Amino acid sequence: MKAAAFEGWKQQAQAAVEAALQAWVPGAAPAGLGEAMRYGVLDGGKRVRPLLVLAAARATGGDELAAMRPAVAVELIHAYSLIHDDMPCMDNDVLRRGKPTVHVRFGQAQAMLAGDAMHTLAFELLTAPPGHEADFELSPRLSALLCALLARAAGHAGMAGGQAIDLASVGKALSHAQLRDMHRRKTGALLQASVMMGAACGQADARAWRALGEYGDAIGLAFQIVDDILDATQESATLGKTAGKDLDCNKPTYVTVLGLDAARRQADELHAQAQAALARSGLSDVSTLARLAERIVERES
Amino acid sequence: MKAAAFEGWKQQAQAAVEAALQAWVPGAAPAGLGEAMRYGVLDGGKRVRPLLVLAAARATGGDELAAMRPAVAVELIHAYSLIHDDMPCMDNDVLRRGKPTVHVRFGQAQAMLAGDAMHTLAFELLTAPPGHEADFELSPRLSALLCALLARAAGHAGMAGGQAIDLASVGKALSHAQLRDMHRRKTGALLQASVMMGAACGQADARAWRALGEYGDAIGLAFQIVDDILDATQESATLGKTAGKDLDCNKPTYVTVLGLDAARRQADELHAQAQAALARSGLSDVSTLARLAERIVERES
Repeated sequence: MKAAAFEGWKQQAQAAVEAALQAWVPGAAPAGLGEAMRYGVLDGGKRVRPLLVLAAARATGGDELAAMRPAVAVELIHAYSLIHDDMPCMDNDVLRRGKPTVHVRFGQAQAMLAGDAMHTLAFELLTAPPGHEADFELSPRLSALLCALLARAAGHAGMAGGQAIDLASVGKALSHAQLRDMHRRKTGALLQASVMMGAACGQADARAWRALGEYGDAIGLAFQIVDDILDATQESATLGKTAGKDLDCNKPTYVTVLGLDAARRQADELHAQAQAALARSGLSDVSTLARLAERIVERES
Repeated sequence: MKAAAFEGWKQQAQAAVEAALQAWVPGAAPAGLGEAMRYGVLDGGKRVRPLLVLAAARATGGDELAAMRPAVAVELIHAYSLIHDDMPCMDNDVLRRGKPTVHVRFGQAQAMLAGDAMHTLAFELLTAPPGHEADFELSPRLSALLCALLARAAGHAGMAGGQAIDLASVGKALSHAQLRDMHRRKTGALLQASVMMGAACGQADARAWRALGEYGDAIGLAFQIVDDILDATQESATLGKTAGKDLDCNKPTYVTVLGLDAARRQADELHAQAQAALARSGLSDVSTLARLAERIVERES
């Protein structure tokens, strides 16, 4: 896929994700809850995780329309985690995607609830409950598999567990191995699950499934390393969130543990691993996934 | 079912739920997260929701062992909501089930994360992910249906939505209809879903499904009315949580809106409705559900 064609696909996919979020995140939820939920997830973000779901579905021959539910679901999990992380008892951040964070805008109680409701909504969308407006139905087998993949990546063994390690690591010296484990859980697990959910929509065979798992693991870790690099080197205005935050909070990062150059080399090496995994997937067109890996590693915000 | 036989069933069921929670809530989750999760859900609570799941499965001929996953899942959702509700930005409560609340014991950040991880774990348990220790497997169809029922009841249209209304209602005069709507969402939805998840395990026919839905709706609302009555009339030591809290917080309750006698009458009337629904369910043995309804209305803590 040429760069221009990828750009076209990406813009179209982002617009479709935005439209699905607009349609599925309920503004009518009571007492301002819907407003807080929509504020927390609409009109912002690069939608990396949904793009990975859609690209993996595409690569495995899955229906991109059917893949929209897991695409939105994983973005809701990501967005809920940001809302909760930004709260005063966690990272106490006031800026996200260039806007005041949800708790600054709506208060802490509503922010916590909005995060909680988005968390549940992710699983509700994957199971298309009776009576829920649905453009299509997922098969029960696919529904259950998508829920399993998402829950495992988001929960105690994945994202939430990584957050707990993150909390406990403030002011501590972590080894490279410990840091890698934290990043894999905190960020990598959900990115990898995005790829696997797309692969599930395309009913990937065992060879492709294994290769995409390796691709997802590599880009998941690379993503967080690049985040660490950007946090240390970019301005808040570029990032749309508070830069230098990890340093200020005395949190170990790839930059503080390995240094900037070694961190950069790690990211490049993981990128190469991701591309090699794609090459052995046996899939005929992995170019969208290849471009996404490139963007994840080369991004500047 | 005689009272003694019911008592025997209840104790056995509670012990089985406790054992499943012990087995399935991971102590090994990293950086103290597992400890906080287990503290928040083990060794406490009446397990009303799991009992409803198991009793409804029993009444519809479902396997009580298979019903243990939704039984534990709904208790995890309930427990996560208590942990988040108790936090300073919400109800700021320090006592729960006779113990310091999770944020008092582990700090706010860990409490929020423990709630989040329990929330996810509920859906993970319902979908029995590959590699997860499982005594049995749920069929994909049952998995997806259970996730749908639980998500719908826990989310913006149910529990989380009810919480948002609750937040917004402090110091306000609600009508009886508004109060009923709030209670139905905040508490009733999850109790009703417990019944329906049990009925799903037993593959209830349309007649039983409808009747159990009515039963669940009635006891769900009755439960919260009785909570309001107990909050106004009992001591903290009896409740295991801070009594008089709603009054102190200037929150509308059935007692403040209708008065104690009318609230009591409402609870009794809902109890009668629940029993009438059971009678028209077409099920041959609804005695366990009947006894549970009785306990919900007549309990003193």
